[in-house]
Formats: sequence, C-alpha cells, structure tokens
Amino acid sequence: MSRFFSLAYSKLTPYTPGEQPRDMQYIKLNTNESPFPPSPAVTAAVAEEASRLQLYSDPECAVLTEKMAELYGVDEDQILMTNGSDEILNFAFMAFSDAARPLAFPDITYGFYSVFAELHHIPYTLIPLRDDLSIFADDYVGINKTVVIANPNAPTGLCLSLDEIERIVASNPDNVVIVDEAYVDFGAESAISLIPRYENLLVTQTFSKSRSMAGARLGFGIGNKKLIADLNTLKYSTNPYNVNRMTAAAGVAALSENGYYMTNCKTICENRAYAMAELKKLGFEMPASKTNFIFARSPKISGEALYRALKERGILVRHFTAERICEYNRITVGTLEQMQALIKTVKEILEEQV
Amino acid sequence: MSRFFSLAYSKLTPYTPGEQPRDMQYIKLNTNESPFPPSPAVTAAVAEEASRLQLYSDPECAVLTEKMAELYGVDEDQILMTNGSDEILNFAFMAFSDAARPLAFPDITYGFYSVFAELHHIPYTLIPLRDDLSIFADDYVGINKTVVIANPNAPTGLCLSLDEIERIVASNPDNVVIVDEAYVDFGAESAISLIPRYENLLVTQTFSKSRSMAGARLGFGIGNKKLIADLNTLKYSTNPYNVNRMTAAAGVAALSENGYYMTNCKTICENRAYAMAELKKLGFEMPASKTNFIFARSPKISGEALYRALKERGILVRHFTAERICEYNRITVGTLEQMQALIKTVKEILEEQV
Repeated sequence: MSRFFSLAYSKLTPYTPGEQPRDMQYIKLNTNESPFPPSPAVTAAVAEEASRLQLYSDPECAVLTEKMAELYGVDEDQILMTNGSDEILNFAFMAFSDAARPLAFPDITYGFYSVFAELHHIPYTLIPLRDDLSIFADDYVGINKTVVIANPNAPTGLCLSLDEIERIVASNPDNVVIVDEAYVDFGAESAISLIPRYENLLVTQTFSKSRSMAGARLGFGIGNKKLIADLNTLKYSTNPYNVNRMTAAAGVAALSENGYYMTNCKTICENRAYAMAELKKLGFEMPASKTNFIFARSPKISGEALYRALKERGILVRHFTAERICEYNRITVGTLEQMQALIKTVKEILEEQV
Repeated sequence: MSRFFSLAYSKLTPYTPGEQPRDMQYIKLNTNESPFPPSPAVTAAVAEEASRLQLYSDPECAVLTEKMAELYGVDEDQILMTNGSDEILNFAFMAFSDAARPLAFPDITYGFYSVFAELHHIPYTLIPLRDDLSIFADDYVGINKTVVIANPNAPTGLCLSLDEIERIVASNPDNVVIVDEAYVDFGAESAISLIPRYENLLVTQTFSKSRSMAGARLGFGIGNKKLIADLNTLKYSTNPYNVNRMTAAAGVAALSENGYYMTNCKTICENRAYAMAELKKLGFEMPASKTNFIFARSPKISGEALYRALKERGILVRHFTAERICEYNRITVGTLEQMQALIKTVKEILEEQV
C-alpha cells in the first residue's frame, strides 16, 4: 500500500478470482465456465467487428438492447447491458443501498456482495442459510433492507421458487430486491416475469455461463425503467463505453442462435445428473443443483484434501475456506468426458484413502 | 429517477459522450477517433481469440502486461491495464483523492474529471487556464492537492513541457500527480521517463487514439509499484475481469506492430499541419495542437453556427457550450481527404456568411 492510498479504501479485502494456473493443462472445473465454445455466428461477428475497432462502441448498445428486449419481452428502457454482471451488481449496490438502506444477503453466497458493500461503505446483514444450505425466504420477508439474492445461489446450487422470490419482493415495497440470476438458465425460474408488477425488482444475468461468453464480459440488468435510468446515471458517470464493440457484436450474434445455447444447457443438465448420481454412489452429499456446478462433500475425505488430490491429478475444482462450507468443493459441470474423468479420479483418490 | 435512488448520487450530472448519430453518414470528426483501421495482426488475433470466449479472461492480463513493460521500459508491477483509460482514471480518483486530499485540475479540460469528483464526493478546485488557453504550470507548483493534468490538454490541444510536468510532480511530494496522456503520441513528451524518480506520479494512456482501438476499450496506468498495487485493490474490488479476452489479444497484437501505428500518427500530424494552415488562411485562430484534433474559432462565424452548418453538410465536429470556449469547435484530424472536404465545406459556409 502506498502512503497516498485513501483511508476510505485502505482496509479493503478484494475479491479473489478462481485460480488460473499456467503450470500445466488442467481439466478446469473451478470457475463455472461452459465447456462449449461460442456459436459460429459469434466468432464470425467478432471477426467482422474487429476491422472497425478504431470507432467508439455505441454507449447505448442500441442494436443489442433491441434484440434483448425482444427475447425477454420487456421494453428497451428496462434493460442495461454491462461489462459482465459484476458491473451491473456494482452499479446496483451503489444506486439502491446506503446507510439509510442497508443490505441483507445470505452468509454463504457470491463472495463479491460483501466486497461491493465494503467498497461503498454500505452496512450489511448476513442472513445465515439453513442447516441444509438453503435460503429461508421468510428471513427476507418484510426485512426492510435492500435484499440481494443469488437465485440459484452460489456455491450451493440451490434455488428459491418464483413464489418465494415474489413474497420477498412484495413484502419490501420500499427497498429494491436484486435477484442475481447468473445461473438461471440451468434449471431455475427467472423473476423477469414479475417485473411488470414490481417497481422494486432488479434482475441481473450474464452471458458468461449459459452463453459461453465468460471471456467477453457481458452482463445485464432488467427492471422497472426508473431503476434502469438510475443505473444509467452511474454508468454515464463511470464508464459510458463499458461494453466494447466486439462484445456487443458477440452478444447480438449469440441471441440469434439461442437454440444452440439452450441445447448446450440441456446437455450440461444431463451431465450434471450423471455426475451427481455417480458421486452419490461414492457416498457424496450434495444439495440439489439448478446450476452448472455441483457442491459436494464426502464423509470419507476432507474438502481440502480432495481439492488437493484432484489438483495433483490434473483436475481443478474450487475449494472455499469459510467454516460452514470448508468440507465441500464446487465442481463445474463440463462435458460428459470431463465428468467421467472426474468420477474415475475421485474413485482412485477415495480408494487410496482406505 | 426512482424513489429508491441513493441520495449520494441523485444530484449527479453524468458525462455526455460525443454524439453518434444514426440518421445519415457523416464525416465523423467529433470524437477523436483514428481514421485508420487496426493493423492486420489485430484483426487476426481478435478472430482467433473469439473461439475461446467461453473461458474467463486472465485477470492479471499477464501476456499483455509483459509486452507493455518491455515497450515502455518499466517493471510489470508498475502497469495496470484497464477497460479504457476512463477506468484507470476512475480508480485513480478513488485511490488518491478524498476530503483530506482534494483535487485540482484546469477549468477547461476533459469533462470527465469533474464527473468522477462529483461521483466520489471529492472536493475539487478548478484552476483557470490562461487567456491563451494554456495551463500555467506555476499554478500547480506546491499546490498540495491531488493534481490531474491532461497533457496534451483537451479540448485545447496544448501541452506542457516535461520540465513543467516535473516541477509540478517534484513540488507536491505528498500528493499524487495524475498525468493523463491520452493524446501524447501526437507530439507531446511522455512523463513515463520520470517514474523511476517520483513515487507520486501516475501516467495514464489509452489505445483508443493512436492505436486505433477506441471500440476495444483498452487503457492503462504506469507508476510506482505501490500506486499500482493500490489501484489493483480497487480493480479486484470492482471488476477483476475488466479487460476481456478479445481486447487483451488485440492489445498484444497492436504492440507487435507498433511501427504501423507510429506511421499513422505521423500521417495524422501531417494532415493536422495541412488543415491548420488552411484554416489559418481562412482567418481561424487555433492554439498549437499536439493532439489528433484542432481547436479552432473564427472571427467570422460563431462556434455554434459553424458546428450546425457543418453538421447540415454532413461533417460532424464537437462543440462545447462552456462560456470560455463556446466560440471554438474541436475538430478531429482525419485522413487528408477528410481534411480537404472539411476545408472546402468551411470555405463554402464562410462565403455564405458574407
């Protein structure tokens, strides 16, 4: 830290991204990336757009926003496209929470929520998950705070029903409820359908997972147009050209081949079912997953030991050290071949344990 | 504005990007874009990278940072790559200024500085340019504030000498001096050479102008490694994957063809000399420009009238309404053909005035 660093930020503990080792080739199941490449239309659109990089991107992302509005059945002024969904979450925390409207979110969830809260000096309450790692909707009903819920939640993979989300939104009319649906395309129900009825609902999603675009950085928020206008005020006060030309073109092309991505999601759900069934046979305990990852613990080996043993054998999963979940590993669902390799390796590790 | 918007931001006046009209094809001389496309290596690198978009980008931008360090003769931990130079400026304002270290910058300069200051509630002092629109270095010597200087300045095009920059940096040892060199490749001297001697100097630059990558969003900061560490704390608390895969690949490729871009800069400087000589013949007054734009006023026609008349005739320039500069227009230097068309059209407009 330099002696010039503002006291406002000098105590920050930044977010730690999943490891990206360069020492060897891993079967990489640690950052919830899709095992499928982008569709041919996406690579073609990006290649074409590359010849126009000397021109600024459209700050309004007009073409992409129009296509998004069509697909999601909302108005264009109800959408904001961002540089990954981290950016829309950052703007939303800034816009809709402060000392007068403190935050509430689960104790076990996406690690960035507490980082954003600390960054902007917003007080927050951590609401413990239940013993089965599920979110208890009643904990948030009428809580009178700005609520942030990842649905499905990470790293547990569990989701709330649309009815439960609606109860939370309806019972907190004076606070915004942010529903982070990064993983929604793998089996949960989106709350976008509630937006016409609730002016206090903001839904965020990303092209990173189900649309194979983690490396392109494209996220978005959908909500009442007044909420979107507030978020735009922050965008135009921070980084008006937040979505670059190539990413915008990739997004438009991805929407034109939605079927390709929906098929991939179906395959990932099938591979998830396969891997969970096999892990169960090996004695693993796992919450039901509605995401592209599995959250698993074994009574036979500690979470950390399994993580290390897998890494030694060339398979990377994500291990967290927080006390409540340190016996688990979060395993991204990849191709069937990757899942077969995972199961085979886990078996070997468990056999060595004996 | 929604009733949920935090009072912390409800009075913000966001930055206004240059207009991007879609009603017709303009000769677009309003946003200081390069008239030259990216180099062939850049388009090829982007096309190749597009097939790997399902994987997250490297948060450390390791390959690009290594090449940058080599080109600029600094260590890798003295560089931070960002999503446009707006992002590094935003981080720098957050990191190095607050109520205890207020800001000082010119009254006429890049419009985003005051937006960032308002966004983060940082007090700032506007230091008037001299009558000839130049920055008076002595105004900043020993000012004991966090200083932000665009060098060359926008929209005037004038620059300070390296000696003047050094006097400002050396005389404010307890404050960071941010030198925004977005336009430095068109004739000014960079302050990067001072970095080994001054721990309080941060230089920011962009690939948008001289490297034909405005639409890719790539900026960077170079400074003492402790300053860069502070900026990284904010990056990892905001958006760790801020530079996407395609932009990083484009950046690496652009550095491998530096000669192409330096030749383009030379051509732009020649076209600038041509256009300024012609405008002078027509009676225009212009500060000396070390940038890829010309800041010009005519005693024969108001700034606004000229802007409108040019737009009607299909040429877009940037007009500002601030009192001190409302008689000027900022005209991006494009190709020789574009400059010839500009001069021809200006002549016609002036003749009609008579």
